[in-house]
Amino acid sequence: MNDRVHLKDLKLPQELATLSIPQCEQLCREIRKIIISTVLKNGGHLSSSLGTVELTVAIHRVFRSPADKIVWDVGHQSYTHKLLTGRLKDFSKLRKEDGISGFCRPDESEHDAFISGHSSTAISAAFGMAEAMRLDGDRHHAIAVIGDGAFTGGLAYEGLNNAGKSSDNIIVILNHNDMSISKNVGAFAKYLTSIRRNSAYLDVKKKTEKILENMPIIGEPVKKFIKTSKSALKSVLYHSTMFEDMGFVYLGPIDGHNIAELEEALRAAKKLRHPVFVHVNTVKGRGYSPAEINPGEFHAISAGGYNAESFNNISFSNVFGKKLAEFADNDRNICAITAAMKYGTGLQNFAVKHGERFFDVGIAESHAVTFAAGLAKQGKLPVFAVYSSFLQRSYDQLIHDVAIDGSHIVLGIDRAGFVGEDGETHQGLFDVPMLITVPNTVIYSPSTYSELEMCLDCALYHTNGIAAVRYPKGTENITIEAENVDSYLLTGNGGKRLAISYGRIVHNLYTAAGDCDVLKLVKIFPVDEEVLDICMDYSEIYFFEEGIKTGGAAETLLAELYEKGYRGKFVIKAVDGFVKQAPVESCMKKYGFDKDSMCELLGTNRSEMIET
Amino acid sequence: MNDRVHLKDLKLPQELATLSIPQCEQLCREIRKIIISTVLKNGGHLSSSLGTVELTVAIHRVFRSPADKIVWDVGHQSYTHKLLTGRLKDFSKLRKEDGISGFCRPDESEHDAFISGHSSTAISAAFGMAEAMRLDGDRHHAIAVIGDGAFTGGLAYEGLNNAGKSSDNIIVILNHNDMSISKNVGAFAKYLTSIRRNSAYLDVKKKTEKILENMPIIGEPVKKFIKTSKSALKSVLYHSTMFEDMGFVYLGPIDGHNIAELEEALRAAKKLRHPVFVHVNTVKGRGYSPAEINPGEFHAISAGGYNAESFNNISFSNVFGKKLAEFADNDRNICAITAAMKYGTGLQNFAVKHGERFFDVGIAESHAVTFAAGLAKQGKLPVFAVYSSFLQRSYDQLIHDVAIDGSHIVLGIDRAGFVGEDGETHQGLFDVPMLITVPNTVIYSPSTYSELEMCLDCALYHTNGIAAVRYPKGTENITIEAENVDSYLLTGNGGKRLAISYGRIVHNLYTAAGDCDVLKLVKIFPVDEEVLDICMDYSEIYFFEEGIKTGGAAETLLAELYEKGYRGKFVIKAVDGFVKQAPVESCMKKYGFDKDSMCELLGTNRSEMIET
Repeated sequence: MNDRVHLKDLKLPQELATLSIPQCEQLCREIRKIIISTVLKNGGHLSSSLGTVELTVAIHRVFRSPADKIVWDVGHQSYTHKLLTGRLKDFSKLRKEDGISGFCRPDESEHDAFISGHSSTAISAAFGMAEAMRLDGDRHHAIAVIGDGAFTGGLAYEGLNNAGKSSDNIIVILNHNDMSISKNVGAFAKYLTSIRRNSAYLDVKKKTEKILENMPIIGEPVKKFIKTSKSALKSVLYHSTMFEDMGFVYLGPIDGHNIAELEEALRAAKKLRHPVFVHVNTVKGRGYSPAEINPGEFHAISAGGYNAESFNNISFSNVFGKKLAEFADNDRNICAITAAMKYGTGLQNFAVKHGERFFDVGIAESHAVTFAAGLAKQGKLPVFAVYSSFLQRSYDQLIHDVAIDGSHIVLGIDRAGFVGEDGETHQGLFDVPMLITVPNTVIYSPSTYSELEMCLDCALYHTNGIAAVRYPKGTENITIEAENVDSYLLTGNGGKRLAISYGRIVHNLYTAAGDCDVLKLVKIFPVDEEVLDICMDYSEIYFFEEGIKTGGAAETLLAELYEKGYRGKFVIKAVDGFVKQAPVESCMKKYGFDKDSMCELLGTNRSEMIET
Repeated sequence: MNDRVHLKDLKLPQELATLSIPQCEQLCREIRKIIISTVLKNGGHLSSSLGTVELTVAIHRVFRSPADKIVWDVGHQSYTHKLLTGRLKDFSKLRKEDGISGFCRPDESEHDAFISGHSSTAISAAFGMAEAMRLDGDRHHAIAVIGDGAFTGGLAYEGLNNAGKSSDNIIVILNHNDMSISKNVGAFAKYLTSIRRNSAYLDVKKKTEKILENMPIIGEPVKKFIKTSKSALKSVLYHSTMFEDMGFVYLGPIDGHNIAELEEALRAAKKLRHPVFVHVNTVKGRGYSPAEINPGEFHAISAGGYNAESFNNISFSNVFGKKLAEFADNDRNICAITAAMKYGTGLQNFAVKHGERFFDVGIAESHAVTFAAGLAKQGKLPVFAVYSSFLQRSYDQLIHDVAIDGSHIVLGIDRAGFVGEDGETHQGLFDVPMLITVPNTVIYSPSTYSELEMCLDCALYHTNGIAAVRYPKGTENITIEAENVDSYLLTGNGGKRLAISYGRIVHNLYTAAGDCDVLKLVKIFPVDEEVLDICMDYSEIYFFEEGIKTGGAAETLLAELYEKGYRGKFVIKAVDGFVKQAPVESCMKKYGFDKDSMCELLGTNRSEMIET
């Protein structure tokens, strides 16, 4: 019964339930070893995954995936889940091209109940599943596992508000580690921490026993019991929590690293035919001391084992953050906003120098934009630094709260273009076609650090409405740059063939252009009359766009040129559909943005290429 | 002191503060009369505005707009505010072309602190203003007035979560009428109602006195007092509410029709230098008995005094709802979802027939889509009926939670195109360019009822991924229709000139086309090869699009045709920028979609026109 067990010898997840607690603990140690060594090699989310090892084991002992649906919010804490559901063999290919994803992917395993990557979606998705089960008379459970950081997102609350009123088979497990990516913020976080510290909640065993004692038969009588004795339950067993106010039975806080305690709570949750909220305390980075001591540093790790987000190596993000802080030295109106990405967006410097004007709003991109609009109405100059793919959550706020009224806000759009190993959910390919539809918006796409600085200046002081500056993850790769961000750099000999692009892929274009002239756009939308006039002089145009084709900058430029009478060749090379995880270079090749593909399209000979 | 006063004789809002309570009450009666007579004539939001008459008067007596910022959530309850801030004279032109807006518009008055129209934005915007004030050392207040319905939207919660942790000059006033547009839903609504009914909260006078007794000086000592005695305050004066858990001082519930009581609470809120949450109970429709008895019916009223949303006259919405309910008779997997728009989207029939499968999620469009994705993962066929402009809130959820995983959901996009009197915030002009960027999406745009039925069939059973069916407000205006929604109807004599359009404006096109052939698109994106081939046969193409031009269907079609070698004339007539309130016919004229403008563009003679 207490024999040593190994992941590879077990039929998982079924056989988990047959193990003793010591065997489970031993398995957890093995799992932690695998996660640590893999993530230090491949990169990935270390702290979150180390925090949920015991919780995941307990969930798979109590519930039967895939009949029971486990929905991991964000998904970056699901590595243990992956190891327990058939992906041990391929785990060394975590986040690799053609390997397994760093998030949950239903097309990867039937045990990944829902796609994940963006935050705060799990309750809504699990509730949809739970309601479908109710309609089908299916008595299994839908279980949302969601961190306290994700609770700063309004979607989590919308889900809770709907799920709490139902009398259904939904269980929400709060993975409470007091962190989102940076230190968690907001009133709700404070509130959770106040519960976390409340020892009166701790003796889950006694509490669940007491609940179950009073429930001779499961089903209707239980529901009735809960209904009639709710206030009694509340006042005797617990004091009221917000989650009970929202209609859930609250169990917790549970020690998230004690398998026996976790199981007891989960079994109780399973028996209650009512929405249940299980509050689990975990330690982010548990079992790997550098990550326990500084979980923020080890939130997302790049391949090779260092954390790209926090180190002070030069990158577009850090250049942006540093320059913004400099502008703010001389302009007291500048305010910086981040949605839980202080380090990721390079704002740590600003936060230190201008703490009063630095706002980390939590994972709440919609709020960030409306909040910025409020600041702008009072004469402030708000700058929201955000990853391209997360800005998708602010589309309505940009249109409704900013653009209609013509307020001036600046967007620092980070991770624009391919992001590499994070895959489909995180690609920054939609911001351009999205923003092109928003009136009163200007989009800059610098390809060097000094262009980025010029664009930021322009966005702050020489643009009205929404001024977006977008830049990729990582470092600059060329130094050929426009002197005037407003709006382009034309290089070449005045031939009849023109290659157009923007952002970092201009680098490859310079090396591939041969006898083609190259037009590097810095202001990519709207395009100035001058740029249109330049294009009109050519009879062949090739537009390379590291973004979604339909509705993108190239299509819109074509429409403008067409109106002016352009009838020459116009070839668009852009992205169609979703882009799977792979190194950025590999994505470049796949979508035709590498030197060779460009040469082929342009019909230029590799020998003609200029090296930059 | 108690002489009769009249709105027109007062210098407002300043002189409000000099009036006695009876004078205020008299003024409220006058205001109600004006609102009722105007709305019955011009259309507008009656119930909401009647519910906030006393509250608005009290706010303007206690605070000094525009130095104090009053942010009305949604804005449809701001008619009294408009009458008190210089718009009495123009009030007869409420919602008229060139008249005053039915929502708040900063370009209309300095007293309209923030744009409104969409729900749940007020707390975020007001908090932005409050933080700007803090940075500027400005001791005025930012006051968000928000209904309980708007609290079902996650953005309100994101705002609350941020505002509650600040030590700032923000006041949130909950206008609690137990209704959103239809009956309010969700756990939070239940919770609010439980507080509303709690008589222990009612004696506000005693409570505020007790608070103030203990606060000799306002400022730091007060903050300290609140901090140290928070639990005492809680347990003695109130019991804990969720809002206190979120960091606010809670005052309420207050009788929202008692000016003296309201003032007292607002003065207390003003003195506290801390985030304050004031819970006000109001009666929607107060003072107009038909609206009090049935506030849902009188939520939005069309010009002429009847409620277009609830009557059973035939409209696209009702045809959609009825047909969907019919499909659901034979298909137990069909589920219908609305975001607080059961009547508006014509789902009332479905709700009655298939109540178990009908989900009103509250004003929570983001959740609606992710919830739909959850249902779809379990084999259900979810249909989310939503107004075009509100779907903008689901952009990320459509991409991330639905499209990447290839789940099949159906969108019934109502109010597509110009909406008329609701103006900029409500125009349905962005859904096409927005959805065109989302991979795995098909967009149908029927122009007749039977096409709508065919499209719905197609979307449910013959399309994968996201299938959107979009249709305008109101009734069909033509009966010339495609037999096969997949995908067009070509009429004409095989000339060289082709006019293309979709949706309702095809009606005008038929009458204006003259010798032009007409291609009516039903599936507008992606366009079939067959349609491209048809276009290639023409040398002049005119595309009329009742939607945003940049990134719209016309530009994308042009790009496709260009790739196939089309070099003929291609003229796009679409919408640029935001469209102000005006009758739909007037918008049509302004943007070139009326018969005359079309004739002019096409160079067709009016005498050539076919009458349909």
